[in-house]
Amino acid sequence: MNALEKLFIRIVQRVNINLRELEFDAKPYVWDLIPKNQMTKFYAFYGISPDHPLNLQFKHSGLAGSYFLGQCRVSNSLLYKCDVRGDELKKKGDRFQFKNFNIPISKDEEIVIEDSAFVKTLIHNFSHDPETLEKFFIKDTISTHYANIHGSPSDGCFLGPFSTVDLTTMRDCIIGTFSYVQAGEISHLNIEPGTVWVRSPGAFNFLYRYPIEKLKDYIYFKAGIKPQGILMDFVENRKEDFQRVFDVVNIEPSFDVPATASLDRYAVVRPSTRIGENVLVSQRAYIENSYLGKGANAQENCYIINSRLAGNNVNAHGAKIIEADVGENVFVGFNSFLHGQPENRLSIGKESIIMPHTIIDIAEPLAIPAGHIVWGLVTNQDDLEAHSISIAELSKIKTRFTKGNMFFEGSGENFVSAFQDRIHHILEANGAYFNSHDNSGQGHAQKNQNMSFNTIQPYPRGEYEGLFPTIMIQP
Amino acid sequence: MNALEKLFIRIVQRVNINLRELEFDAKPYVWDLIPKNQMTKFYAFYGISPDHPLNLQFKHSGLAGSYFLGQCRVSNSLLYKCDVRGDELKKKGDRFQFKNFNIPISKDEEIVIEDSAFVKTLIHNFSHDPETLEKFFIKDTISTHYANIHGSPSDGCFLGPFSTVDLTTMRDCIIGTFSYVQAGEISHLNIEPGTVWVRSPGAFNFLYRYPIEKLKDYIYFKAGIKPQGILMDFVENRKEDFQRVFDVVNIEPSFDVPATASLDRYAVVRPSTRIGENVLVSQRAYIENSYLGKGANAQENCYIINSRLAGNNVNAHGAKIIEADVGENVFVGFNSFLHGQPENRLSIGKESIIMPHTIIDIAEPLAIPAGHIVWGLVTNQDDLEAHSISIAELSKIKTRFTKGNMFFEGSGENFVSAFQDRIHHILEANGAYFNSHDNSGQGHAQKNQNMSFNTIQPYPRGEYEGLFPTIMIQP
Repeated sequence: MNALEKLFIRIVQRVNINLRELEFDAKPYVWDLIPKNQMTKFYAFYGISPDHPLNLQFKHSGLAGSYFLGQCRVSNSLLYKCDVRGDELKKKGDRFQFKNFNIPISKDEEIVIEDSAFVKTLIHNFSHDPETLEKFFIKDTISTHYANIHGSPSDGCFLGPFSTVDLTTMRDCIIGTFSYVQAGEISHLNIEPGTVWVRSPGAFNFLYRYPIEKLKDYIYFKAGIKPQGILMDFVENRKEDFQRVFDVVNIEPSFDVPATASLDRYAVVRPSTRIGENVLVSQRAYIENSYLGKGANAQENCYIINSRLAGNNVNAHGAKIIEADVGENVFVGFNSFLHGQPENRLSIGKESIIMPHTIIDIAEPLAIPAGHIVWGLVTNQDDLEAHSISIAELSKIKTRFTKGNMFFEGSGENFVSAFQDRIHHILEANGAYFNSHDNSGQGHAQKNQNMSFNTIQPYPRGEYEGLFPTIMIQP
Repeated sequence: MNALEKLFIRIVQRVNINLRELEFDAKPYVWDLIPKNQMTKFYAFYGISPDHPLNLQFKHSGLAGSYFLGQCRVSNSLLYKCDVRGDELKKKGDRFQFKNFNIPISKDEEIVIEDSAFVKTLIHNFSHDPETLEKFFIKDTISTHYANIHGSPSDGCFLGPFSTVDLTTMRDCIIGTFSYVQAGEISHLNIEPGTVWVRSPGAFNFLYRYPIEKLKDYIYFKAGIKPQGILMDFVENRKEDFQRVFDVVNIEPSFDVPATASLDRYAVVRPSTRIGENVLVSQRAYIENSYLGKGANAQENCYIINSRLAGNNVNAHGAKIIEADVGENVFVGFNSFLHGQPENRLSIGKESIIMPHTIIDIAEPLAIPAGHIVWGLVTNQDDLEAHSISIAELSKIKTRFTKGNMFFEGSGENFVSAFQDRIHHILEANGAYFNSHDNSGQGHAQKNQNMSFNTIQPYPRGEYEGLFPTIMIQP
């Protein structure tokens, strides 16, 4: 057994120890998911820009195909084709307001990944946990295909494929396949597959559960197999396009990118695509024959195909939009799968909110009216009515409200305004409101333009094959 | 405001953030407990021996009067007259058995104290948490007078005076005055003052609650005052004896210490005391006119006065024994206060177990029979009957059992054997079974003999008055 296998065994053991109360054994789920013989094949790469603090420390880890930006330490971990962002790190001297606490940031924040293994996971660093503002830690954690660890410190957890943990600190939890959790702080929970849970303690609680038999067509995962279903097939079918992007050193876009927009060098863009002012297309996004209006973004692992986005659209990590016409200010949440057809297009009216982990998969045309919230599984007009509510109506809810498999309690107004505030923040952070006249409102779309990319390689053979030497990269 | 005050404010804020769900404000409790103007007065000291790994790193911290041994990092913290032990650290290459997990230790364990403040707290490092075997962490935690953090990683907690957390990992918890918790893993709990709780999930649960009005005579603490009551008066009255021990550079015991025993240089020993073979007397223990038989120990903050201990006695951290005759193999738990009188002595039969945080305070002679377990508040024979059970009888309990304020459920046999195994381990670790013929069974009593002591000092004035410069001490 070489060092990489020993390391993997050790990580699995650590996760199992943390999850012992939930009687979970990660090994049969993940042993074949990180292709150990391929860990030598892919270089890792990192971005350098004047706007991001540079401090990378890698120790006894495999990093195949992973991308890093900003201040990050990785030790005793295996990362396989992950995106680790470091572009929203808090800085020494900043202050963070949390309710009535005004908290000074006492040193530059860093991302610290220890004793963990991830497959094709997105790690986004803007964590909101007031308990750990200087250290965004992920330890003793395993995460599988296309999961999002979004500003969520994690200790001793397992994340199923296409799951998302958003602004939630987790300890000793299992997050089921395709589940979305935004709950502040959770501990010792086993979240069933297909759960969509948004909670703000004392304010509101939104809970939806997918009909599990229907979800299985889209994504299914059990011990001993690879994740499978329509979602996996969809991304696997486009893998080769990404291979080309990684195989060449320099790449030029095939069309004009406005000076205020940015198109990542590791995105795939196919004809005939146009992007407007202030647009952000992140690494590992996939755009084909689409138009992205001013201030729209396509975040990591987004797919936008044969679609038209009117402008100021947030397409959160992993959102997929096919054959759709999307109005202004529409938000499409994490890992949503919005699948129209050439003859049966989907249209979404302006300012609507598509909840994270929504699946819309239609064989007839479907129009979502403006100003609506949509969740869950929608295949036709009847489903839409059972899985949506107008924002105006939801804002009136003061106690509780149920519809199908969805349960809501608390203040609808707070829920709506929390979402809207956040959408506004995301657009702002991404540079959607950038004004080139006075240079105000800079965000990722503008700052990411000055990026240079560098690559690092693992040991090519021997006991440490597939692991990287100890590497520290500082200014 | 100088750097030390700023640091203290920052620590208090961090604790409050962690405890926000429990709506706790630590500031009024602790602001006057660390005498900031005295932080410059006391040196800190550390022991060096061939048997303990040396790696001390102190950063932006005040350490007044604190003692360190072994591998330890302290940053952004205030320690006031604490004992931090590092003599049971796990070593790289060791293996740790936890139920069916056999876990390799992948690097030398270290004690890591961050963003915390402690007053006269004992930190003992043999932690049992299989999730964090290489790092015994204490962060965002405030602990007050004579608390014990005993092998218990802690994140975001507040410990009241004379409380003990034993082999328990805590997150965001308040441990009330004089409460004892041994519960494996706890989170977001507010433990009421005077709680004695011993739980092994799936095996047993022991719970006793002190009558709070009676406990107040012994120890009472609220915001804005110093801890007060008989226990505080007892230790304060003997403070000057310790002052002498710290004021001189070299000190020689006034009697013969057997070659197999150790008497710490920072213990107080008054006439006419005798100690037997294999005895361990730790720093900050106080022995007066007493006999400690072969293999007995007096751990940190123990007081043994006018008493006779037959041998192989464990007197856990903070135990106090006055005017008592204690049989062989008797265990006296943490912070217990066993107070006989010259004319009304207390006797404890062999192999009895005095539970942690037991108060026996008598005005008539009292004899505890051999082989009994005693808990709670005992002032006379009637109390004793209401607060004890024979070990034989307890071993027969299979479901549940209550007596007064004590509730037990689970297997009495498991409970008894867990205690007995642990007592055996403690005696072993302390060197009680050392055999000088074949040099087998070495423990702290033997290893601590080769210790040299060194002192370090804080900034004497200026902005950083009372804080120590950054110090790293390695071989």
